[in-house]
Amino acid sequence: MSFTSLRIVCGVKSTRSKEKVERLIFEILSILQENKYDGPMGARTIARELEKRGFEIGERAVRYHLKHLDERGLTEKPESLKGRIITEKGEGEVRKDLVGKRIGFVIGKIEELIYKMSYNLQEGGGTIAANISLLEEGKVDEALNIMKEVMEKGYAPSPLVKVSQEGESMGRFKVPKDKVGIATVCSITIDGILEGEGIPVSPKFGGVLEFRGGKPKRFTDAITYQGSSLDPLDVFASKKMASCLNVTKTGSGSILANLREVPISARPAALDIINQAEEKMLNGVLEVGHPAEPLFGLPVDVNRVGIAVVGGINPAVAVDESGIQIETSPMETLLDISEIHHIKDFV
Amino acid sequence: MSFTSLRIVCGVKSTRSKEKVERLIFEILSILQENKYDGPMGARTIARELEKRGFEIGERAVRYHLKHLDERGLTEKPESLKGRIITEKGEGEVRKDLVGKRIGFVIGKIEELIYKMSYNLQEGGGTIAANISLLEEGKVDEALNIMKEVMEKGYAPSPLVKVSQEGESMGRFKVPKDKVGIATVCSITIDGILEGEGIPVSPKFGGVLEFRGGKPKRFTDAITYQGSSLDPLDVFASKKMASCLNVTKTGSGSILANLREVPISARPAALDIINQAEEKMLNGVLEVGHPAEPLFGLPVDVNRVGIAVVGGINPAVAVDESGIQIETSPMETLLDISEIHHIKDFV
Repeated sequence: MSFTSLRIVCGVKSTRSKEKVERLIFEILSILQENKYDGPMGARTIARELEKRGFEIGERAVRYHLKHLDERGLTEKPESLKGRIITEKGEGEVRKDLVGKRIGFVIGKIEELIYKMSYNLQEGGGTIAANISLLEEGKVDEALNIMKEVMEKGYAPSPLVKVSQEGESMGRFKVPKDKVGIATVCSITIDGILEGEGIPVSPKFGGVLEFRGGKPKRFTDAITYQGSSLDPLDVFASKKMASCLNVTKTGSGSILANLREVPISARPAALDIINQAEEKMLNGVLEVGHPAEPLFGLPVDVNRVGIAVVGGINPAVAVDESGIQIETSPMETLLDISEIHHIKDFV
Repeated sequence: MSFTSLRIVCGVKSTRSKEKVERLIFEILSILQENKYDGPMGARTIARELEKRGFEIGERAVRYHLKHLDERGLTEKPESLKGRIITEKGEGEVRKDLVGKRIGFVIGKIEELIYKMSYNLQEGGGTIAANISLLEEGKVDEALNIMKEVMEKGYAPSPLVKVSQEGESMGRFKVPKDKVGIATVCSITIDGILEGEGIPVSPKFGGVLEFRGGKPKRFTDAITYQGSSLDPLDVFASKKMASCLNVTKTGSGSILANLREVPISARPAALDIINQAEEKMLNGVLEVGHPAEPLFGLPVDVNRVGIAVVGGINPAVAVDESGIQIETSPMETLLDISEIHHIKDFV
């Protein structure tokens, strides 16, 4: 569909060509998309951003277009907050138009989150990257108990969670009607911490990691973040290729995990930071490899060491495996560290 | 699991260390795996191949191990044929052990099929690459009618199919009990034809291609063949991201498609070969791009032109969308061109 439907809306009152209006609408949506982790944007800010991109149309015209975008369900005004945010449908439209760039879409999203994360390992404050799971009220206790077990066994990057009720917000996300939201720490958080301490990190693969006797053995499947428009862990989760419950109960089976690389020279500093992060209950690192050596069967570039980290959605995957309906968006939002607490406080 | 279960079988009678036996078993399976498109292999041939790999254990010992592999369901004797073939379960074991290499597994499988395909455009004989779909007897007519429509609209690489009953073989594949098999032409066939005529082809992306008004518009999702252990088209099909029935009925929606690259200098020859293949009812090419220009939104390397081809499993995806249970293995086997016929002969 892309922008065909928008033509009708915008073509009537404007004297510009249809193409120009389509381009303008696309720019508005992509401005909202690019800034989505900063919260809602007002028409004035959007107009200023448009100006930078060569569209001098003023605040009032932006408001006009936003109204129509709201009507099409591509943007919305969050209650009690000023300005607009892009909806999931709106993001879909942007993505469709950006597919040329989007082949690096997952890596782009990850890099954006890493860059925007503000958590400071020394001072302790700031934002971390979180996944959000939604489920029915009646299933929350059972789900939290399962998640707790997965986290205690070390198959998640952190035991910290946030539980929010219908209508409450979790970062940029608002819990919909009749649902409870559980935010868990995303494994990208460790990348953000490393970057924050000056270590350049390159996320490489998302994959399925086989365990035997409680020990990680090898990746049995993997997809590069660089070469996929879909989040690899989301692909493996929806194809039900993990068995997180089994691994938690018996030590054998497969969990979701990922691999990133850091420069060889950064290895000692990375180990130190990982230890410090562990003390703050943010970690999930399974192993830091050796120079250019494959890690659990996945190749590592020359001059690099691989770091394998457990997937942040493993607790949610375990809940799904137990038969409880749960809907999870990986890498969904930034959350202030002060908002999340140890899962044992909730069960 | 991998080879833990095999330890018990092999460890008892052998004087070698467990590790050595595991390695041997793995080599036998990978020999069968690598030669699977050539049909069953006998113990003597396997022993000879093992020798090349440093295992001088003789034919009799191979037979001993094959018997146990049969019992574990990792290999089997096809009826009426001599020798062993590797089962799907066996392939799973090999893959688990090969994951280091396997990150290029899909591209490896494609390149192997391209290399082994023997179809000759000038003389007309030889083998092509085929997908195999399995379904219940009672649904075959309905399914073939849907497939016919998808093929006639040009959303499949060819209208040629083979329909086989329970127990019959389709290349290296044998139709299981209570099922009917439908073999369709795999889009890799066009790559094999180009390679056969001396044009080097590099398969790049598998993706979801949006259509409007019967015209291809842009890829909305894609995964590189190089960076994935899963077949991208299989991923998109199982995530139900295509709408082949819709595209067939209305001209709008999304089909599965893929992109390969050839050198710029080969463009005129490629166009000529594609036209000749079209006359033989083997084609599926949507567009041959221009030097280094993106094709339907996907990037193309410098010094290369992109060629977009419809996915071979689109007819099967359409059948699935219609609610008929169908199980499809893309790139499953090589088939002699003489065995496949126009779908109109079957409906």
